[in-house]
Amino acid sequence: MVLNNLIQEGDYVILYLSKQKQWLVKVKKGEMFHTHRGIIGIDSIIGLEYGSSVITTLSEKIWLLKPIIKDFILKSERKTQIIYPKDLGIIASWTGLSPGKIVVESGTGSGALTIFAASLVCPEGHVYSYEVRPEFKIIAERNIAKSGLSKYISLKLTDAKEGIDITGADIALIDVGDPWTLVEPMRKALKGSGSLAAVSPTMNQAEKLTTTLQNTGFTNIENMEVIIRDLEAREGMTRPSMRMIGHTAYLTFARKIL
Amino acid sequence: MVLNNLIQEGDYVILYLSKQKQWLVKVKKGEMFHTHRGIIGIDSIIGLEYGSSVITTLSEKIWLLKPIIKDFILKSERKTQIIYPKDLGIIASWTGLSPGKIVVESGTGSGALTIFAASLVCPEGHVYSYEVRPEFKIIAERNIAKSGLSKYISLKLTDAKEGIDITGADIALIDVGDPWTLVEPMRKALKGSGSLAAVSPTMNQAEKLTTTLQNTGFTNIENMEVIIRDLEAREGMTRPSMRMIGHTAYLTFARKIL
Amino acid sequence: MVLNNLIQEGDYVILYLSKQKQWLVKVKKGEMFHTHRGIIGIDSIIGLEYGSSVITTLSEKIWLLKPIIKDFILKSERKTQIIYPKDLGIIASWTGLSPGKIVVESGTGSGALTIFAASLVCPEGHVYSYEVRPEFKIIAERNIAKSGLSKYISLKLTDAKEGIDITGADIALIDVGDPWTLVEPMRKALKGSGSLAAVSPTMNQAEKLTTTLQNTGFTNIENMEVIIRDLEAREGMTRPSMRMIGHTAYLTFARKIL
Amino acid sequence: MVLNNLIQEGDYVILYLSKQKQWLVKVKKGEMFHTHRGIIGIDSIIGLEYGSSVITTLSEKIWLLKPIIKDFILKSERKTQIIYPKDLGIIASWTGLSPGKIVVESGTGSGALTIFAASLVCPEGHVYSYEVRPEFKIIAERNIAKSGLSKYISLKLTDAKEGIDITGADIALIDVGDPWTLVEPMRKALKGSGSLAAVSPTMNQAEKLTTTLQNTGFTNIENMEVIIRDLEAREGMTRPSMRMIGHTAYLTFARKIL
Repeated sequence: MVLNNLIQEGDYVILYLSKQKQWLVKVKKGEMFHTHRGIIGIDSIIGLEYGSSVITTLSEKIWLLKPIIKDFILKSERKTQIIYPKDLGIIASWTGLSPGKIVVESGTGSGALTIFAASLVCPEGHVYSYEVRPEFKIIAERNIAKSGLSKYISLKLTDAKEGIDITGADIALIDVGDPWTLVEPMRKALKGSGSLAAVSPTMNQAEKLTTTLQNTGFTNIENMEVIIRDLEAREGMTRPSMRMIGHTAYLTFARKIL
Repeated sequence: MVLNNLIQEGDYVILYLSKQKQWLVKVKKGEMFHTHRGIIGIDSIIGLEYGSSVITTLSEKIWLLKPIIKDFILKSERKTQIIYPKDLGIIASWTGLSPGKIVVESGTGSGALTIFAASLVCPEGHVYSYEVRPEFKIIAERNIAKSGLSKYISLKLTDAKEGIDITGADIALIDVGDPWTLVEPMRKALKGSGSLAAVSPTMNQAEKLTTTLQNTGFTNIENMEVIIRDLEAREGMTRPSMRMIGHTAYLTFARKIL
Repeated sequence: MVLNNLIQEGDYVILYLSKQKQWLVKVKKGEMFHTHRGIIGIDSIIGLEYGSSVITTLSEKIWLLKPIIKDFILKSERKTQIIYPKDLGIIASWTGLSPGKIVVESGTGSGALTIFAASLVCPEGHVYSYEVRPEFKIIAERNIAKSGLSKYISLKLTDAKEGIDITGADIALIDVGDPWTLVEPMRKALKGSGSLAAVSPTMNQAEKLTTTLQNTGFTNIENMEVIIRDLEAREGMTRPSMRMIGHTAYLTFARKIL
Repeated sequence: MVLNNLIQEGDYVILYLSKQKQWLVKVKKGEMFHTHRGIIGIDSIIGLEYGSSVITTLSEKIWLLKPIIKDFILKSERKTQIIYPKDLGIIASWTGLSPGKIVVESGTGSGALTIFAASLVCPEGHVYSYEVRPEFKIIAERNIAKSGLSKYISLKLTDAKEGIDITGADIALIDVGDPWTLVEPMRKALKGSGSLAAVSPTMNQAEKLTTTLQNTGFTNIENMEVIIRDLEAREGMTRPSMRMIGHTAYLTFARKIL
């Protein structure tokens, strides 16, 4: 029996109608949720098991799914482009993000990578994230609170270029417009053999970052793009999706050497 | 100060010469490691910090990197195609693999996905993995032992099609030639709203699996391929790599509904 | 001096504002062309050299470009999905479409592939194209007339499955929903060693077509997709385009054997 | 009846065993062709129809296919990387290469693009190709002779940067390491609205070329990569090929404005 699988007040739940139409909603007594396909009384879902369905006032069936970290990130409040789940997954695999790791990040941005990293290193590990713009730190704090991972994350309103007060980190994450300026401070924060990952929209950034890494004590430097091709699988009519995301960012990986 | 970052007897270490030439080696006193670029005395690396280098007898510099899970998987013993790190990362991101999750898997194969899942759910979570072929279970056990994750994994020499004795799992992973035959038992093993992921080399498998999922109580079904394009970033000469992996497998994802 | 490069009445001209905003217009005396960026008097462009510009009534500069076949195809009237220029280019290269070749096609559809083939085989070669639906033949005729290639194309309102009255063709082109039904009649129409190309949106069509080709006297069978990744090249900010076309169709190629 | 489809002395023929094993051979009386699968007496194929087969001395069946331009290019003698058929096809489609066009090219290299262009513009059109390195011009001449297109091509041993003595060209093709240096001379050679295409292995070249085009009287500038994904279509086991070409070159296209 699965005791912890019932929807409770205060939970976040995905109201799932279709891949394009899904909403991340906080469960509050007495509230009504309005969709273009009818209304749902939130009281009616409290106590249901995740995976159940409800019917809207317009007779549409809505599935109640438990959000995973990807959902919190895709639905997060943002001021800039977030890092896509595809890129997050590859960062996890390539850097060794996993329970217990100590992570340093700059900049926090809207907190997508911060939240993702914390979700994998908790409860023993920790993410220290630096952001220089106060308005971004505020948004990130709200997104982090929603994800329930606040206690595994320390946000700092500081310019990481001027130095990072962490040492011995396992993993360093960079997501700023001039990533090469963070190579030296991140190198100091990392332990020997530690992993660095950076996210760069343009080839020019990846190129300049790579040159800087080569000259600053890193090896095993790799640059790549992650491309997802959706497949529309239907009996006798299977083909790749006609639409796809063309590009998000280059990912750069490296290991610190002594 | 980083106390735990010194190479000790019994550790695994990556001897890194270049992206193409790197070896995963167990540190044993008195042994010599032979490469085409000279010999390394293992005694000379014991006590060094990860990230240090040694010089081979042919004056080649070798970096000593701490392996991450990806390295154990790429260097694992295998009888069949392993699942690539690119696909593992996307599976993590799309299913919500993270600390504390309970995972059911079939088949174990050489244990790549098993090890990767365990590395993310440990120490509170667990992976229950089913394999019907004894020779694969033996290989998987060796690979798992090397990764140091044995206590988070239970291997079962059973045909998962005939039923799984786990319920309430968060995540179900399928990597067999006829994935549709496992949809019903995996559905029973999963909790409501739980995530399923399957790995299928061919479009026909993905198609048949998708149809079965649609008819067996799953929603949010997605099929995709993950394509990695390496970028060769060099000052003034940056371009995508001339070689790339064309295809490994389709990934299918779904959520259990009640 | 380039005598034939002046815009004349009856010509088609591309009014080019930007990649997204360009119009294919027939030059007629006395007409006005209305855009969201102002009006152009067509009289004012007659006699100008191709490559010149005009200014709209809203002071926007519009370039006057000479359309190439790709433009006629992209701007053609259509009832179904046309074949994209990317796929047309590969068909040309893989089948050897070139001056003097005799081409058989089924079905005509809106005539995109017909027009493209005729533009490469003219003036000595010819395209014989079969279409079973009268409403498509009418649209194709209009599109072909616009392209100026009518005399190199013979349209036939016949079901090609019931036989093709051409023999000795160099190249056979198939663009129908059940391409395998045309393999046998196309084989009869082709000369020995002749090239066949087919366009199939789904992998199931490509699979069934391939099996049929293998069993019906063809060799050198290849299936592929053509993917175009636009690069946004800007000084210091170069990256692949964020948007791209995910999939249009599989292309199948084969050579007739005796 | 197809009179011209018999193999004659002096013809080139493809001896086709499999996609990986095919040879382009000149038909000469009295010669023997040796493969790892046995020997073929060339006399035995003279007079056969294209599309026929012969049996080697090791009882292997070899198909006799008529080469198309793509085959001459793939089998051409070369000192540098040739332009791939995929890129040639897109260049044809994007520039409007077709019968009667006048083409200017620099540099000739081993003549792949030269031959391809000539195969589409002949017999009324012409390709004027500039090459500054004598050893390349010699190789190109041999490759062109083999293709049978010599009379539609004029090779010039001159540095195109110092001026091109052609005007009124329809299409300009650039394949050199510093393509931006040819923008100005190519602009002079082109008629108004004429098409330019360039081939650049790196994104830095494409970037610098694009900036130069923007500043030198061109519009409709596009940069792209062409990616071919082979599909292995087999009954019930269809999937993309495990191997693929990662990158060849960026293609840049533009139209001359006045």
